[in-house]
Amino acid sequence: MNEARQERLRSVRRDLHSYPEPAWREFYTTSRIVDELERIGVDQLYTGRDVVDGNARMAVPDDDELEDWQRKAREAGARGDVLEGAAGGFTGALAVLEQGKGPTVALRVDIDALPITEADSVAHAPSTEGFRSTNEGYMHACGHDAHATIGLGVLEAVKKSDFRGTFKVVFQPAEEVIGGGKAVGESGHLDDVDHLLAIHIGLDHPTGEIVAGVGGFLAVRQFEATFSGETAHAGGHPAQGRDAVQALATAVQNLHAIRRHGDGATRVNAGVVEGGTATNIVPGEATLEGEVRGETTPLKECMSERADTVMSSAAEMHDCEVAIETTAEAPSAVSDDALADVVYDAADSVSGVTSRLRTDDLGGSEDATYLMDRVQDHGGTATFVGIGTDHPGGHHTPTFDVDEDSLTIGVDVVSEAIRQLSK
Amino acid sequence: MNEARQERLRSVRRDLHSYPEPAWREFYTTSRIVDELERIGVDQLYTGRDVVDGNARMAVPDDDELEDWQRKAREAGARGDVLEGAAGGFTGALAVLEQGKGPTVALRVDIDALPITEADSVAHAPSTEGFRSTNEGYMHACGHDAHATIGLGVLEAVKKSDFRGTFKVVFQPAEEVIGGGKAVGESGHLDDVDHLLAIHIGLDHPTGEIVAGVGGFLAVRQFEATFSGETAHAGGHPAQGRDAVQALATAVQNLHAIRRHGDGATRVNAGVVEGGTATNIVPGEATLEGEVRGETTPLKECMSERADTVMSSAAEMHDCEVAIETTAEAPSAVSDDALADVVYDAADSVSGVTSRLRTDDLGGSEDATYLMDRVQDHGGTATFVGIGTDHPGGHHTPTFDVDEDSLTIGVDVVSEAIRQLSK
Amino acid sequence: MNEARQERLRSVRRDLHSYPEPAWREFYTTSRIVDELERIGVDQLYTGRDVVDGNARMAVPDDDELEDWQRKAREAGARGDVLEGAAGGFTGALAVLEQGKGPTVALRVDIDALPITEADSVAHAPSTEGFRSTNEGYMHACGHDAHATIGLGVLEAVKKSDFRGTFKVVFQPAEEVIGGGKAVGESGHLDDVDHLLAIHIGLDHPTGEIVAGVGGFLAVRQFEATFSGETAHAGGHPAQGRDAVQALATAVQNLHAIRRHGDGATRVNAGVVEGGTATNIVPGEATLEGEVRGETTPLKECMSERADTVMSSAAEMHDCEVAIETTAEAPSAVSDDALADVVYDAADSVSGVTSRLRTDDLGGSEDATYLMDRVQDHGGTATFVGIGTDHPGGHHTPTFDVDEDSLTIGVDVVSEAIRQLSK
Amino acid sequence: MNEARQERLRSVRRDLHSYPEPAWREFYTTSRIVDELERIGVDQLYTGRDVVDGNARMAVPDDDELEDWQRKAREAGARGDVLEGAAGGFTGALAVLEQGKGPTVALRVDIDALPITEADSVAHAPSTEGFRSTNEGYMHACGHDAHATIGLGVLEAVKKSDFRGTFKVVFQPAEEVIGGGKAVGESGHLDDVDHLLAIHIGLDHPTGEIVAGVGGFLAVRQFEATFSGETAHAGGHPAQGRDAVQALATAVQNLHAIRRHGDGATRVNAGVVEGGTATNIVPGEATLEGEVRGETTPLKECMSERADTVMSSAAEMHDCEVAIETTAEAPSAVSDDALADVVYDAADSVSGVTSRLRTDDLGGSEDATYLMDRVQDHGGTATFVGIGTDHPGGHHTPTFDVDEDSLTIGVDVVSEAIRQLSK
Repeated sequence: MNEARQERLRSVRRDLHSYPEPAWREFYTTSRIVDELERIGVDQLYTGRDVVDGNARMAVPDDDELEDWQRKAREAGARGDVLEGAAGGFTGALAVLEQGKGPTVALRVDIDALPITEADSVAHAPSTEGFRSTNEGYMHACGHDAHATIGLGVLEAVKKSDFRGTFKVVFQPAEEVIGGGKAVGESGHLDDVDHLLAIHIGLDHPTGEIVAGVGGFLAVRQFEATFSGETAHAGGHPAQGRDAVQALATAVQNLHAIRRHGDGATRVNAGVVEGGTATNIVPGEATLEGEVRGETTPLKECMSERADTVMSSAAEMHDCEVAIETTAEAPSAVSDDALADVVYDAADSVSGVTSRLRTDDLGGSEDATYLMDRVQDHGGTATFVGIGTDHPGGHHTPTFDVDEDSLTIGVDVVSEAIRQLSK
Repeated sequence: MNEARQERLRSVRRDLHSYPEPAWREFYTTSRIVDELERIGVDQLYTGRDVVDGNARMAVPDDDELEDWQRKAREAGARGDVLEGAAGGFTGALAVLEQGKGPTVALRVDIDALPITEADSVAHAPSTEGFRSTNEGYMHACGHDAHATIGLGVLEAVKKSDFRGTFKVVFQPAEEVIGGGKAVGESGHLDDVDHLLAIHIGLDHPTGEIVAGVGGFLAVRQFEATFSGETAHAGGHPAQGRDAVQALATAVQNLHAIRRHGDGATRVNAGVVEGGTATNIVPGEATLEGEVRGETTPLKECMSERADTVMSSAAEMHDCEVAIETTAEAPSAVSDDALADVVYDAADSVSGVTSRLRTDDLGGSEDATYLMDRVQDHGGTATFVGIGTDHPGGHHTPTFDVDEDSLTIGVDVVSEAIRQLSK
Repeated sequence: MNEARQERLRSVRRDLHSYPEPAWREFYTTSRIVDELERIGVDQLYTGRDVVDGNARMAVPDDDELEDWQRKAREAGARGDVLEGAAGGFTGALAVLEQGKGPTVALRVDIDALPITEADSVAHAPSTEGFRSTNEGYMHACGHDAHATIGLGVLEAVKKSDFRGTFKVVFQPAEEVIGGGKAVGESGHLDDVDHLLAIHIGLDHPTGEIVAGVGGFLAVRQFEATFSGETAHAGGHPAQGRDAVQALATAVQNLHAIRRHGDGATRVNAGVVEGGTATNIVPGEATLEGEVRGETTPLKECMSERADTVMSSAAEMHDCEVAIETTAEAPSAVSDDALADVVYDAADSVSGVTSRLRTDDLGGSEDATYLMDRVQDHGGTATFVGIGTDHPGGHHTPTFDVDEDSLTIGVDVVSEAIRQLSK
Repeated sequence: MNEARQERLRSVRRDLHSYPEPAWREFYTTSRIVDELERIGVDQLYTGRDVVDGNARMAVPDDDELEDWQRKAREAGARGDVLEGAAGGFTGALAVLEQGKGPTVALRVDIDALPITEADSVAHAPSTEGFRSTNEGYMHACGHDAHATIGLGVLEAVKKSDFRGTFKVVFQPAEEVIGGGKAVGESGHLDDVDHLLAIHIGLDHPTGEIVAGVGGFLAVRQFEATFSGETAHAGGHPAQGRDAVQALATAVQNLHAIRRHGDGATRVNAGVVEGGTATNIVPGEATLEGEVRGETTPLKECMSERADTVMSSAAEMHDCEVAIETTAEAPSAVSDDALADVVYDAADSVSGVTSRLRTDDLGGSEDATYLMDRVQDHGGTATFVGIGTDHPGGHHTPTFDVDEDSLTIGVDVVSEAIRQLSK
């Protein structure tokens, strides 16, 4: 039976892998997940506008882009009913099992892919075994195909188990742009959850290693600032211009010069800049895409306020205006010791687990933190579980891949922990 | 007869206007000019690699781009022999009349167009009268169509006159990118010239107004700097990156902060910037297109040296490398009083001339200065003549146009001055 | 008689030279001038608060400093009545001759010295001939001792001449800090003046050379900006500080980066900076003494507004406050052609004049411009006259000195011009 | 007897407190310590050039300053023999007890004071009880008077105890400028030490609280950078200057903009800046006193290299030179668990100890780290012990004071730990 299960998990994962879709455009992916959920049989199934708070979504692409991907999904065989519900970028799904009295437990997995061109070499298994990305330029380079698969596997396992209580699985869109976590949180679906588990595969841990409660989430805010001035001829009337590139340069210099903080680590980056039209024209417009982070949410807030001040002062200094838009945001979060202990203990009995870590630092950002904070604010506990997998290339690189043996291990560790929670 | 001449000038100008070609891509334009030169009959005709020093050309586009325009010119009816000679961007032509003993006089006109989309409105004559640009996105928005036409008209007029001596007309490519003047100068064609005239139409002077010796040329150097560092994850390993955008920002700030000069006006501009790939990646590459100018060539040199120091120090400061390429360059120049006097006096007798200015400031840059300096260095004299024309829109705007009556005036003033020079 | 006059001029000049007093502290100097004015005999004599508008004075030192110099002047023999009137820094004098019907003509000379230690070498005449500065650390290094002397000489010459009209001589304090011109102007004393002459000795012109109408005055504004933030321990709580030195550095960078102007020359300088208290403390306070200039008054105004914006934005950017105080200010000015012509012609007949220039550029700033502008605004004319003198060291250097032969030449040129104005 | 001991400790501490001497000028202090050492009786006593490696001293004041304090110490009654040995700033002492076979244990205490004016209020005990600083402007505001006292107390206690082995006490000069630790380390005196204890009083811990092994030392480097350019008249010849203040400003901006590090906390501060001479002169010289820190020594090194690059590039960018001098430096350090455990256990039996902490973070810098690292590099162990004391004002403030009851507690905890080490 285990072999059949492993085969099914592999098959789902490879299907999703071959059809990677980026944030808010997971049309085919959602359709495929709904297929599986119907096969398994769930008590409640939410899709479309019922999964997220539409106003809380961040970094949603424009309509043309959305329709383009919707059309492609239809051509690839996605279901009409799912596509209709997901129109406008309302991708993702939430399934509920009601198995009597007991705690409400939730599992969050994310499902979106990245704008990376997948490797096409003999050393890359998806390429040689026929499930390389068919959406050229996009790739599941962070294992969310595996996450969705594990989510489905855990759902099936919990359904078949003696778990008593309510179990929810959230298939969250748009994690890679840190744009979906808040929208799911604001939906309220998780407000009655007693215990939330979120998972991530890999993270430089090998197959067989489990991290019960990942920590070290950096709270993050990403922004796009548009500096607007006025063009002028740089030879004839240099002072008539209001130079948006000067404003940009002043902002970049001073963003990096925001003082370090005594309370913990902070980060700042000016990642993408662009401005001006010609060598001999005073630049009238310039844009800056950047981010700030903090070891804690208040540290991120502090950096964020300072960054806004720097950018608005830089604009003012050069007689320009600046419009700052937050394009993504996530708080920090802490895995609860008690819940992590449950996972740690559960992993002990799981076949294939060869190493257990109580905790380890992520050192990056994740919007699962929105959901963890939300559940904790409502009195529940949460933990972020790392499921090791041998991955040839690093995360977010063209040669990333997962060891499919880790899919079963992930399903078993998580479903066993959930089973323990109802005892 | 004058009417026939005026008609012919108008016809040539409109043909050139309807087929604007940017720097080093003047294939059709050159072909059309050669047609006219053959019609007029000249003693020597140089085209292709015989017009310029190939090594001294600046801002030449890549092969694909050149071939694309060459193909379009062929489709538009350009001559095969001219196209063949001009392959690789060797556009432009030089015609010589040998009319006996006397001074060697030269006229320089430029022939390239701009990457501007021409107006398409009832108020814009080229649009309503059927000679609007057929190369969408490109336009003769600075009157070089008129310059080439006047060059041809002067050639014909000199040929028919009692001028004794040698007369050369240079149809120079690539003025708009300040890329062709040096290449023509280095060819040596003008080294034996006793008197050089260059012309420009418009410059905010109305039809009937002549400026005998334009001054106030700003020497200029345009450059492109590419800063190269190393990418890194901005959250996890911010210090492993070598940030090219920080280098860029430091350079921009300090380029503008180059001290003003006591000897005269200077200029600096950071016109176009671009860098980085993602919000959360330390940017590994960034480019800056900028320029410096000076009221005199030494002031430009001084600014140029300071700019190089600023950019290389900014790169070093942030552990980056920088490659700086000069994409265009022109010296300042001074119109010779004696030669301007000849033009000033000649204009007095020309029909249609209603106002004469001895001099006026350009306040911008022009690569005719290379040729003026070169002739003067070899013992000759040079002047830059302004030929007024009522122009509805400003230079370099979509509604620029010339009053075609000024074509005849320009031809008459210049050819009369040349005639006087052989007396 | 000429020899006696020359001897008297030399004697006065040497007395003043040996007792240099800086801006608003010209107590002894004023006393000595009043002595001479009484000897010559004038119709009206204004001193103390009757010479300037007290509210318009700039850069006045504090009371302790003023009293200190007042005390020293008393010890040096200054008159009690003059000292009493000049208390609080009301130095300077204005003398009026009323010689019947005719134009009102004024001469402005300045009288203050500089905080420079005078040379003490055998090559320096004041040192070897016994009239070196007795106020160690201060020196007449810009010839204002000669200016005051020439003012007295002209007054005496005009009195003895056939000049008909009213003649005023202003002995203006505080030119070196650009602090006195405005205060004299606002007094209204010159509002009825038809023709104003101001003079300066030297300026790199040799003895015998006269410049009839100096131009090229740079309008100037000097300021002191105090940035205030909050200190903090740089190791423990770096982000609790609000760093005034960061605000200062941002201001300095961006002051220099104010774009050049198409209408003419501009200047900016961050001359003196100071800030912070200890290596390991986030600096809570910093000061910047700087200046902006413009070829015209509007250019200076434009630079001044930009500078204020830069400094206030720099403060805001780093959560600091900034207080900006204007410490000195002067407009640009233009010498009237007609009046300069009178001087030019008058100089022709003066013995000792070997060279006459119609005009020459100052290339610096002078607060005589306030008075020139004021007179011109009231319908009068003004010119700034350069009186050449062989000066061994440059202006504002320890070895500056004047050729005393130029005193008589100056007196003769100016008084002859004034005589001509009443004809 | 305990009361007599407490009385003696208080008396010594008050004597030292009333005579605070800053770094390398602890002449009286050293003399007083030698008095006590002789009273107690030690087996070896090192003073003067025998205590430190003279070449490794940092931040030593100039000869005039040293002689001035030496003279004052003599007037205050310091011993001639000690003063003679300490001439040139060779202050400090090292005492050795040889008590048979056993481990070599060392205690390091520091003895210098701060340039802070002590409070003179009724709430400040030293003021009301007659032992306020008699060196106006200087103060024991960090408790080094108590450290020296405890060092003497421990020596006496160990001598009287059953401790077997060798015991050394280092009375280290110049901790406040982070200038003495390295010099003591390089002397080699501690290279044979098995266990090193260093102590600090206060640190926001109350009387009765002990921290067995303080951590969180920030490695630090302090530097002074002198930027040299060339002055020029800012109005007439602005570009002839090479602006040291521009170099300074660029350096400050970019020092703060050194990227944060993924491996741990870093710090940077531009603490004191000064430059320029006059508003209208391009500044030719400017100085910057700053520092960098890191959570580990390699992080400090990394910041230090980046800082040097920034400063040298900033100088080069503005055609200036820069001379960078390291004025103080200290590594990070880690207290050894095993040794801290000994202290923790020993404290349990000491009367007056009410609270024990295994560890706590310093969050600042200390040059005891040089000695801890040195001992550990030679195979020994080291710990930095915090001895709580109620202190009214914070460290480095005018109202800092210690609760003298903590002197006995400190002596007892440390001597008991040392006694245990020989068992």
